[in-house]
Amino acid sequence: MIDACLFDVFGTLVDWRRGVADAVTPAFAARGIDADPFDVAAAWRAEYDPAMARVRTGARGYVPLDDLHLENLDRTLDRFGLGRHFDEAARAELNHAWERLPPWPDTVAGLAAIRHGRIVAPCSNGSIALMTRLARFAGLEWDCILGAEIARDYKPSPAVYLASCTALALPPERVLMVAAHNGDLHAARALGLHTAFVPRVTEHGPGQTTDLEAEADWDFVATDMEDLAAQLG
Amino acid sequence: MIDACLFDVFGTLVDWRRGVADAVTPAFAARGIDADPFDVAAAWRAEYDPAMARVRTGARGYVPLDDLHLENLDRTLDRFGLGRHFDEAARAELNHAWERLPPWPDTVAGLAAIRHGRIVAPCSNGSIALMTRLARFAGLEWDCILGAEIARDYKPSPAVYLASCTALALPPERVLMVAAHNGDLHAARALGLHTAFVPRVTEHGPGQTTDLEAEADWDFVATDMEDLAAQLG
Repeated sequence: MIDACLFDVFGTLVDWRRGVADAVTPAFAARGIDADPFDVAAAWRAEYDPAMARVRTGARGYVPLDDLHLENLDRTLDRFGLGRHFDEAARAELNHAWERLPPWPDTVAGLAAIRHGRIVAPCSNGSIALMTRLARFAGLEWDCILGAEIARDYKPSPAVYLASCTALALPPERVLMVAAHNGDLHAARALGLHTAFVPRVTEHGPGQTTDLEAEADWDFVATDMEDLAAQLG
Repeated sequence: MIDACLFDVFGTLVDWRRGVADAVTPAFAARGIDADPFDVAAAWRAEYDPAMARVRTGARGYVPLDDLHLENLDRTLDRFGLGRHFDEAARAELNHAWERLPPWPDTVAGLAAIRHGRIVAPCSNGSIALMTRLARFAGLEWDCILGAEIARDYKPSPAVYLASCTALALPPERVLMVAAHNGDLHAARALGLHTAFVPRVTEHGPGQTTDLEAEADWDFVATDMEDLAAQLG
């Protein structure tokens, strides 16, 4: 019944908060900067949705997430008053942090198990270049890379889910969307995809208040990717 | 210097002639048809380039290769006077032959070795759906799937090679195109990609007359994919 599983990536499969903080820490230390790297990660990530919104609404044409991340880094460094410490090359280097995010402990084994017998692909807002390098870093073994770039739009726009199904020559009812974010699943369900919720209650750190649990009767609710693999059989 | 290797697939990595003949054989036997399955494979493949040419020239918008293959099957069955034996469902089933092509003996090990330390992706005229299923069947482990569909054009149009490099955020001079076809490499070299020729002298059967050897001073000429992996180091 389910021929392919599509995965959200940032937060669902990898810990962007720790990964970004791990990249920021030595960059700040080398410059004698005393700022909490987790605060910087959170601030950088907070620019993510507004930047994509301009593309979703058509106010701006599609640009890859790598470019949005770089623009968002400029804004973030300015907010912390750190702009003078980072030239263009240093910013480009720091931007690669998004290609080097650690998987959650269950991600690699769970994804490999799910891949037995069905197609697996990211349906992320990350570009093909970003998803490709992140997959190699984190050990994510995909069958192909779908998501924002093939649709030239950003989730939760319907085009991104639909273009991903079309690229696999599958109707939405043969596809499962897996995410740690209820909003992602609402968008997918509205288009006819199956849905699986896997909570990541520390994605935003110890004080997280959102997406702590399933907010609808998703087709699957799993404790982690290995549990989801077991439920899918 | 070379961060990514792009591969032609049909003929270069998999034996389409044998794979198609292996699918045709039982379909013909079940219908009491006495025709050489290799002749059918060759005739089906002969429709490939003219069908893509209409898209390349703009006479027709982009349609995935799966659809062209199905149209070409109609033509091929008519040519052999076999149209009445295959209804729509039987034709769709036979069309899946292109998703089940055997790799050449050196392909899987060679590709895995090349993948150590650099990105590998198909740059084929096959669709994402076709490349995804073929990769699972043949054991090709890709980092992502590039080629015709992301460019919405067909090789040897420049757009296909360039879109593949752009999707990886790499300039052409950091990318190697690997093919068993000199024409493919001429097109890639003209755009600044590096080139590797790996001859497949029985792709078209025992009487093959084309692409028996390198016709230019390609950057690499290898006896097979394992040899190419060794040369790349």
